[in-house]
Amino acid sequence: MKVYGDIQSGNCYKIKLLMSFLNIQHEWIAMDILQGDTEKVSFLVKNPNGKIPLLELDDGTCLSESNAILNYLAHNTIFSSSNAFEHSQILQWQFFEQYSHEPYIAVARFIEKYLGLPADRHEEYLAKQSGGHKALTVMEQHLSSNQFFVGERLTIADISLYAYTHVAGEGGFDLSQYPATNRWLDRIASTPAYVSMNAMTI
Amino acid sequence: MKVYGDIQSGNCYKIKLLMSFLNIQHEWIAMDILQGDTEKVSFLVKNPNGKIPLLELDDGTCLSESNAILNYLAHNTIFSSSNAFEHSQILQWQFFEQYSHEPYIAVARFIEKYLGLPADRHEEYLAKQSGGHKALTVMEQHLSSNQFFVGERLTIADISLYAYTHVAGEGGFDLSQYPATNRWLDRIASTPAYVSMNAMTI
Repeated sequence: MKVYGDIQSGNCYKIKLLMSFLNIQHEWIAMDILQGDTEKVSFLVKNPNGKIPLLELDDGTCLSESNAILNYLAHNTIFSSSNAFEHSQILQWQFFEQYSHEPYIAVARFIEKYLGLPADRHEEYLAKQSGGHKALTVMEQHLSSNQFFVGERLTIADISLYAYTHVAGEGGFDLSQYPATNRWLDRIASTPAYVSMNAMTI
Repeated sequence: MKVYGDIQSGNCYKIKLLMSFLNIQHEWIAMDILQGDTEKVSFLVKNPNGKIPLLELDDGTCLSESNAILNYLAHNTIFSSSNAFEHSQILQWQFFEQYSHEPYIAVARFIEKYLGLPADRHEEYLAKQSGGHKALTVMEQHLSSNQFFVGERLTIADISLYAYTHVAGEGGFDLSQYPATNRWLDRIASTPAYVSMNAMTI
């Protein structure tokens, strides 16, 4: 299968990380959104919403949305759950990630890391900080009494939240005030077959 | 089971609509976010993220995030899918809804319908229009050659997208330019056991 992505994008890195944990062979097709790669007609026929990551199966069928892709790849593995309620808890955290976490932390990071914090987006950058800290506070509260987000083991809920949390500093978020979250980050980074976002850019 | 919600909120209405289709008995606990109901300590212990809808099972266990709740309730029913790829396609559209649709259409509607379009949010309201139309265009393209979003039958992907699309006019979106979407809206509204958002406010 093929993955269209930008490894510095947390949403894309999620897929790379799970594929490494599961040892899934794949072709990685590097995309540059700032160069308009996701707006080309050849890409829009695969994903009309024009976003990465995108998974393309060997028969040409495509699946978009990072967390939907994670659910597909993790089906019937220890990174998901066959228990209906537990699976719904995984989804709960993944929807939390896309609605209450990513739009603040990932967007602030994008403005700082990708765009170089231009003056015309500085106000937006500052406005993202409180929402990001709110999400980090919800996570810290949960991780203060749990090793992982669901079922006391590493699942795709953790992978989804790890992606942008571990690089939140690149969006101006000081993680030192979240000790339980830091321990959880270390727990994931020390899991066998872990690959870092930076290692893959070499 | 109990549902904490505001029936005029599309995210909450999703749950009511699926429960009607599935004839699931439940207690509906009306919440008023403008009165701070979701910020009370008694609610935050149930959902630390302070958002509705919230599902509370008989044993007190809680599940948040509208689309996670839909997946839990629809498990093993015709509104979901036991096929891994098809289920991932349902999730793809639900994540699309929460990331590319709701933050534009639902927020514009909130500013207009709930807040009365105050001057200090008028610029934000206008800024939401292009993102909303982009999402509606992606939907229209899919619905031009499909009766429903996944598997040619009504699933929770449709319920998720129906919730805010059918009231998009309340956020300033003119739906008349999306004919396939209008036919899809009619298809859902004519499904047996359908309940309207307005009927339930009586």
